[in-house]
Amino acid sequence: MSTTLSISELNEMKHAPAGLLPAISKRWSPRSFSDRDVSPADLAKVFEAARWAPSSSNGQPWTYIVGLRNSETHKKIASTLVGFNQAWAPLASVLILGLANTKFAKDGKLNTYAFFDLGAATGFLVLQATALGIATHQMAGYDHDAIRKILEIPEDYALGSVMALGYQDEPAKLPNPKLIEMETSARNRKPLSEFVLSAFGQPLNLG
Amino acid sequence: MSTTLSISELNEMKHAPAGLLPAISKRWSPRSFSDRDVSPADLAKVFEAARWAPSSSNGQPWTYIVGLRNSETHKKIASTLVGFNQAWAPLASVLILGLANTKFAKDGKLNTYAFFDLGAATGFLVLQATALGIATHQMAGYDHDAIRKILEIPEDYALGSVMALGYQDEPAKLPNPKLIEMETSARNRKPLSEFVLSAFGQPLNLG
Repeated sequence: MSTTLSISELNEMKHAPAGLLPAISKRWSPRSFSDRDVSPADLAKVFEAARWAPSSSNGQPWTYIVGLRNSETHKKIASTLVGFNQAWAPLASVLILGLANTKFAKDGKLNTYAFFDLGAATGFLVLQATALGIATHQMAGYDHDAIRKILEIPEDYALGSVMALGYQDEPAKLPNPKLIEMETSARNRKPLSEFVLSAFGQPLNLG
Repeated sequence: MSTTLSISELNEMKHAPAGLLPAISKRWSPRSFSDRDVSPADLAKVFEAARWAPSSSNGQPWTYIVGLRNSETHKKIASTLVGFNQAWAPLASVLILGLANTKFAKDGKLNTYAFFDLGAATGFLVLQATALGIATHQMAGYDHDAIRKILEIPEDYALGSVMALGYQDEPAKLPNPKLIEMETSARNRKPLSEFVLSAFGQPLNLG
């Protein structure tokens, strides 16, 4: 399969319903990344957004290992990707591994919300990126044992997503037809009635 | 301690650095909630935002149990709050329990990213609320065993935060001086150099 869709036509198709915060409506996870690099100033803003996320007891358990294109860290993260991710994600300007410190820094006690809080901070990060015109695509599809070893991640840190971050490119630039098909497929979400409930198993009446 | 700070003066003081997405800069977690209720239309928007969050294999593992003021669910969630949370959170228009389905709906396999994804969706939710002028405050401080029992939550679902959601009120309306002191204290975050790294233990140069 090939496509003649432009970036803007594709983004229009992927757009979530109107009426939401634009960064939320516009965000989706493309696979076609361009060779344009993200500036250090924009990267700083993206992480500043994560910095202001809420967290349990203000523990701020998130850490990001950031690989800029051509760096050793970028190569190391890329080397752990599996399946289709190997074909497209290494082309992104930045590869980021998110980590959650499962112990509170202040007293070493178990932080049972660390992984949840990493998710929230990463949500803030991707929306700030979107607001700056920067695309993100997170993956769980990487070799967790290999990345822990190659990046020397202590056991106390839970492994979050690996994120490709950079500027979006035309879908036609993707290296194989299956990836183009994935890039141009419709988005799919459960209806609110399946996950917004007034009691377990009972949809909330939202009028 | 008492305070004469107005809502707008307090929000100005809590504001994160400029240059971020306004919903991110403006969001913080107040404890003073007013008796004004959130409309069903605005609540629907808030959950619509969560709906469009990314998730591992698009599993969308989040579920929200929503208690509107005066409902049985609101009372049940409120009854499980511990410590200071008992004093202020029950006054919020809406109390929400977030849940993460730890098994993929499609095949029943373990979803190791469910809790992370619930955090991300909840991050989207709180930013959409902020954009609508609605305040949120999440708590881990509730009786997890009691809430699972009283709301009949199956074991496969991990318990996320309980969130108070509603319109903010004056800090002086809080029921005790300690809460006013907490409400008006400065926000505190780690510097980027502590959590944005080029390799473990080594800050990324964002110069």
